[in-house]
Amino acid sequence: TTNSILTSNNIVFKKDPSTKEEDSIATTTSSSSSSSNILHDDDRDVRIKNGSNRSSSSSKNASYYPYNMVWPLPQHASFGTMDTSICLDASSFAFVIDENGACCRTAEPMSQSCSDLYEAFDRYKLLIFDHTVPSSSSNDCLSYASIYVQHSNSKLDFDVDESYSLTIAASSSSSSTLSEHEKKKKGNIKISATTTYGAMRAIESLSQLIRFQYTTKTFMIQHVPWHIHDKPRFVHRELLIDSSRHFLPLSTIRSIITSLSYAKMNVLHWHLVDDTSFPYCSEVYPQFCNMGEYSSSQEYYTREDIVDIVAFARKHGVRVMPEIDIPGHTSSWCRAIPDICTASKSILSPAINATLTNQVVFNLLKELSNLFTDSFFHLGGDEVQTVLWDEDIETVKYMKLHNISSSKDIYLDFVRLAHDTILELGKIPVGWGEIWTNFGSTLNGGVVLQKWLIQQ
Amino acid sequence: TTNSILTSNNIVFKKDPSTKEEDSIATTTSSSSSSSNILHDDDRDVRIKNGSNRSSSSSKNASYYPYNMVWPLPQHASFGTMDTSICLDASSFAFVIDENGACCRTAEPMSQSCSDLYEAFDRYKLLIFDHTVPSSSSNDCLSYASIYVQHSNSKLDFDVDESYSLTIAASSSSSSTLSEHEKKKKGNIKISATTTYGAMRAIESLSQLIRFQYTTKTFMIQHVPWHIHDKPRFVHRELLIDSSRHFLPLSTIRSIITSLSYAKMNVLHWHLVDDTSFPYCSEVYPQFCNMGEYSSSQEYYTREDIVDIVAFARKHGVRVMPEIDIPGHTSSWCRAIPDICTASKSILSPAINATLTNQVVFNLLKELSNLFTDSFFHLGGDEVQTVLWDEDIETVKYMKLHNISSSKDIYLDFVRLAHDTILELGKIPVGWGEIWTNFGSTLNGGVVLQKWLIQQ
Repeated sequence: TTNSILTSNNIVFKKDPSTKEEDSIATTTSSSSSSSNILHDDDRDVRIKNGSNRSSSSSKNASYYPYNMVWPLPQHASFGTMDTSICLDASSFAFVIDENGACCRTAEPMSQSCSDLYEAFDRYKLLIFDHTVPSSSSNDCLSYASIYVQHSNSKLDFDVDESYSLTIAASSSSSSTLSEHEKKKKGNIKISATTTYGAMRAIESLSQLIRFQYTTKTFMIQHVPWHIHDKPRFVHRELLIDSSRHFLPLSTIRSIITSLSYAKMNVLHWHLVDDTSFPYCSEVYPQFCNMGEYSSSQEYYTREDIVDIVAFARKHGVRVMPEIDIPGHTSSWCRAIPDICTASKSILSPAINATLTNQVVFNLLKELSNLFTDSFFHLGGDEVQTVLWDEDIETVKYMKLHNISSSKDIYLDFVRLAHDTILELGKIPVGWGEIWTNFGSTLNGGVVLQKWLIQQ
Repeated sequence: TTNSILTSNNIVFKKDPSTKEEDSIATTTSSSSSSSNILHDDDRDVRIKNGSNRSSSSSKNASYYPYNMVWPLPQHASFGTMDTSICLDASSFAFVIDENGACCRTAEPMSQSCSDLYEAFDRYKLLIFDHTVPSSSSNDCLSYASIYVQHSNSKLDFDVDESYSLTIAASSSSSSTLSEHEKKKKGNIKISATTTYGAMRAIESLSQLIRFQYTTKTFMIQHVPWHIHDKPRFVHRELLIDSSRHFLPLSTIRSIITSLSYAKMNVLHWHLVDDTSFPYCSEVYPQFCNMGEYSSSQEYYTREDIVDIVAFARKHGVRVMPEIDIPGHTSSWCRAIPDICTASKSILSPAINATLTNQVVFNLLKELSNLFTDSFFHLGGDEVQTVLWDEDIETVKYMKLHNISSSKDIYLDFVRLAHDTILELGKIPVGWGEIWTNFGSTLNGGVVLQKWLIQQ
């Protein structure tokens, strides 16, 4: 077997500034040779060709406007002049599913993916129409956006299609044979996406184009017509949270997930436990729920909490990738089950009871794997101080008894145990770069690596 | 007429640490001579008599537990031992209005005050039951709290009664002639309040006593029976926000109001405009909506925004007291209507057009007075640099023409104009301490003063 190593084109790395997604901005070049307004950002080659607005400002930032109204920058975008605008009817505006595609309301029972999209409709209506307006102010404004979705049963995972197109046209561009009523009914905001999660990205982009105009008290989109074709440059766009070094309340995690969706980030990397604390109430090992807390307050996540967070994230188009960092960050495990650790209680060790140690690792990973539904499961593997085993009398005895010549082999055994468990559960193990620098191709196949050290 | 000056017993002052509400904590003394658990905080004399728990800890903070589970400290509280606890049924728990009092669901149409309370029920159920639990875990737990409210039509204003009592008894304390079913139906959480806003304070206290127990996955109240009788020590407990020196989005203001309700604070003092910006879209003077913003983004509050915030606050038992700081903090007015200011555009002046200047002050205050429904309207009056008038050629001419010997009289004229306007509208003018130190008893009657300077 060979190792699948996602390169910087496919994964956002921890702590490596050279691979930031914002690269696409840093390498932007511009040309004003054309009067059409086209943004084309592909293969790290950004070509901006803009017209009337460019000349109105010489500052670098202003030259991006109105491209930068949608953030991150779409792959392709074109737009009209500032004077051409449409308004939206705040009181009656609706997202309407195109009946030629998936997710019609009449299709019962509704799939989870479609249900997630309908919830997003409600969420975004509250986000977009964030001012109460007099009912008269948007009488003749557009009252719906049309959404075409191709597939109704997409699972949000590392391979989900997030591409979308968004077209916003002025009413006058409709066929002149239509009555005024028909023009409004036909609508002039069209979204098209392969999956419901792509449609959510489109709605996020749309929401960023809508501005409240205080003088007229209307919700406006300027620079129509807009034509946006977009897809993520990186399939994996994550933020890492660490609930061990400091406990994060559920409301904080939900708030972070909501923010991720605004930035079209798609992965919450949840570094759940570490040396500092083990804030998870395990079903198989309930003793963690008394011995793992960060402070004197009870600060834990239950199984139900995790299920809730994973569902909340999915509804926002965000995957949750758990991390259980084995074996280098496990001293909190020792408080609950001392026999699986060295005498110093600083790290897992097979010395006292190898069977028990392996069982605890296996059972915890299996239990968590059922709660975190994503295909990726991060197993850490960084910063392992093998000296902790070399200095532990029982571990040294164990190594002699089993003819283990180097404590680095203990390290490898734990990495393999963790990876094999996750592979056996049908998932993809993820690990920090040190497992590659230490063990290279001797690792199990199918491991995804993440760098956090710049020199690695 | 005489001036009503609220003393430190009745109002929370700005920037004066000696009058903080937390005084009641600083002066706390304790005695462990009794085995009953009674907290009695009245007239700055806090007597804590606690029993079994005290001996379990010698630290100062721990000695307050479990008194400090409710914060701010209730006026009177007694409680049982840690071992006596009840659990709540998360899946079916309801706040139930006692039919002997006001706010029954059958009483149609429901008053605003009762409707606010029902909304609070929904809000607090989400706050209290903040973990999903397996349905089996709270089968035999208490499923409702009974709420008796005396008056259905209370207006939230400076004189509203916020007192309440809260009793939480264990099921076993019910009459032994009741069946198990009846015991549960009778309930053992009772709230009694004069007004719906007092009932909200009771529910806030109740919510602070409920803790999630991770090992059993139940919502528990320990130390029953609880008997709490509480009322605010200060009728006016405010937080000042300043939306001029920095714009605050509506979502931020809502978040602040929610936080105030957790701390049983009851006034949001909204310092709306100042020299820096005038973020209000006036109906009478629409030019402010183009000339008053803080930054290049459109950052304003519309009339509808203010109505929404005032309603949101009222639903949380929080009054909104607006402040228009006249005449010392008005340079932002000059950008929109230059003729009402000195030539330096730094402060209001009657010199160019006294009628217009007076009209603008009067009309703006009248317009805002309709939106902010509270009886209190703050008119500032602090930090007036009379030298700005002495150095303004037109103002000096105006003073000579009208035989005004000192620019301090211009200051007084503006203060009187503002106060008279608010009094004429049937409201109570509030002002900063300088108007008292400068003008004392020559002020209009019925003015409420707030100190912000320690030496004043």
